Amino acid sequence: MHLATVAHAAGTSAAVLDGDVWRALPAADLSALLAAGTPVPAVRAQAGTVIDGAVPVLPLPAPRKVICCGLNYADHIRETGRELPTRPTLFAKYADTLTGPGADLVLPKGLDVDWEAELAVVVGATLRRADRPTALAAIAGYTVANDISVRDWQYRTLQWFQGKAWDASTPVGPVVVTPDELDPAEGVEVICRVNGEQVQRGSTRTLVFDAADLLAYISTFTVLRPGDLVLTGTPGGIGAAREPQRFLADGDVVETEIPGIGTLRNTVRFTA
Amino acid sequence: MHLATVAHAAGTSAAVLDGDVWRALPAADLSALLAAGTPVPAVRAQAGTVIDGAVPVLPLPAPRKVICCGLNYADHIRETGRELPTRPTLFAKYADTLTGPGADLVLPKGLDVDWEAELAVVVGATLRRADRPTALAAIAGYTVANDISVRDWQYRTLQWFQGKAWDASTPVGPVVVTPDELDPAEGVEVICRVNGEQVQRGSTRTLVFDAADLLAYISTFTVLRPGDLVLTGTPGGIGAAREPQRFLADGDVVETEIPGIGTLRNTVRFTA
Repeated sequence: MHLATVAHAAGTSAAVLDGDVWRALPAADLSALLAAGTPVPAVRAQAGTVIDGAVPVLPLPAPRKVICCGLNYADHIRETGRELPTRPTLFAKYADTLTGPGADLVLPKGLDVDWEAELAVVVGATLRRADRPTALAAIAGYTVANDISVRDWQYRTLQWFQGKAWDASTPVGPVVVTPDELDPAEGVEVICRVNGEQVQRGSTRTLVFDAADLLAYISTFTVLRPGDLVLTGTPGGIGAAREPQRFLADGDVVETEIPGIGTLRNTVRFTA
Repeated sequence: MHLATVAHAAGTSAAVLDGDVWRALPAADLSALLAAGTPVPAVRAQAGTVIDGAVPVLPLPAPRKVICCGLNYADHIRETGRELPTRPTLFAKYADTLTGPGADLVLPKGLDVDWEAELAVVVGATLRRADRPTALAAIAGYTVANDISVRDWQYRTLQWFQGKAWDASTPVGPVVVTPDELDPAEGVEVICRVNGEQVQRGSTRTLVFDAADLLAYISTFTVLRPGDLVLTGTPGGIGAAREPQRFLADGDVVETEIPGIGTLRNTVRFTA
C-alpha cells in the first residue's frame, strides 16, 4: 500500500492509493490513523470514497518522537573522516521540525544550509525493549526525508541538535510505502538533487544499522509508538564535505528521491 | 505563586498553593492549564475548592519540547576540562523522559547512572525569534529537575541524546514557582544529595547562559510554547567527574533541592 495524508478542498485526510486515485481513510491524517491503533495491514479495508484533487502533504504531522541516526552509510562516514561505528549515533528532532513534500524551506539568510537525503521509517506498533524481529514486524512503512542541516549551528557546540531542529526544515513524504512493497534490505536508492544536479546517491544496502536495528536499539531506552519516525542517516555527498564546501542558496530546488516511494521537491527561501 | 499538578482521590488537577492548602485550577494538570492560554499571573483568580490529600506529581506531564543546556555552570565546565562557551550546548529530551518528584528511577542494572541537579524553566507564552526581554517576560516559572544521565550510553557516540533520554529518568517538580517569588539572577542554590550526602551545590549566579538567554537563543530555531521546559544545566560535582568515578547504586536515594522551590526525592531501582 501507498498511504498518505492528502490535502483536499475540505481539509486533510488520511488516504490510501487505489490505482491512480486516493481513497479516504477514517482519520484527518496518518498520525491520527496510526494513533487510533488500527494495524497497518488492516487499513485497506477501511478505504472509503475517492478524494478529488488530493495532494499529498506531510504524512505524519504529529509524531511524538523523530529520532535520527547520523553516520550510518559507509561512504558518508568515510567522507567525514570517521571509523565505522559499533553503535548508532542518535539525535532528536520534534514534530515542529518537519514540513511537507512540496513546502518551501524558509530560513533566515546567512546560514550554512546543507542537504541530507534519507530513508525514514514509520513506526506502526508500540515498541519497548524490543528485539530485532519484533522491531522489524512493527515497521508500518517507509518514506523519504531530507535532514536539512544548518551546519554552522550544528558545529557551534559538541551537540548537533541546534543545527538539526530548525522549525519546518525537514521535508518528509510524499507517501508511506508499506514493507510488503518495499524492502530496504534488498537495496533502495536514496538520491538528492540540487537544481537538477545529482549530489547524493546511495543504496540502503550499505547501511551500517538498518531500520530494525535502529528501532530495537532506540526502544532500549525510550518507547516508540505508532506514528513515530526514525531517520536512518544519509549517504555520501553532503555539501559540507565537498572541497570547496557548498551550501544551499536562495531559490535552490532540492529534490529528494527514493524510487519506489517518491520525490520531495522543496525550494529554499531565505528571509531577511 | 506556587503551582503544581496534584494527585488526589479522583485523579489529578492543576492547583495553586493557598497558605498550606492546594486549591484546584480548571485543568487536569499544568500542561493543560498552560496550553489553554491563561496568562500565569491570572490563574490565581481561577482558584477553586481546596483539594484534600493533594500530592504534587510531575507538574508538566505533556511538554512538546524539553530542551536542555549542558556545560552552563563555570565550575561544572572546569570539572569536564573545557573552556567557557560562547554558545549554549543544547540537547533534547521528550515528555516520556520525565517523571515525578517522588517516583522511583527504574532502569536496567549495569548502567553508569549519574546525577545532574538543575534549575528548570517553564515557558509561559509562545516564543519565536524572541529577544531577551521578550523571553524573560515569557517565563511562567521555575522548577527543579535532575537530568539523570546514563554516562556509558551518553558517551557511546558523539551525541549525548541516547544517554539523556531514558524513559521516566528525569524527575521534575515538585512545584512551579512564579518569577515574582524567585529570581535566579539573584542566585538560587541548586543542590543534589545522594543518601543524604551533599554531592552538588551551585548557585545560579554562576550560570553562563541564564533562563532568558536560553529561551531567546532556542527560539531562534524552534518555537517554544506554554508548558515547554528548558533545563539550564548542572553545577559541579557529577559522579563521572570524580576520582574514582561514582555512579548510582540500586536503592540509592537522590534528593535534588532548590530552596524556595522544593525537593525531589527519587530512589534508584535497577531491574534485571
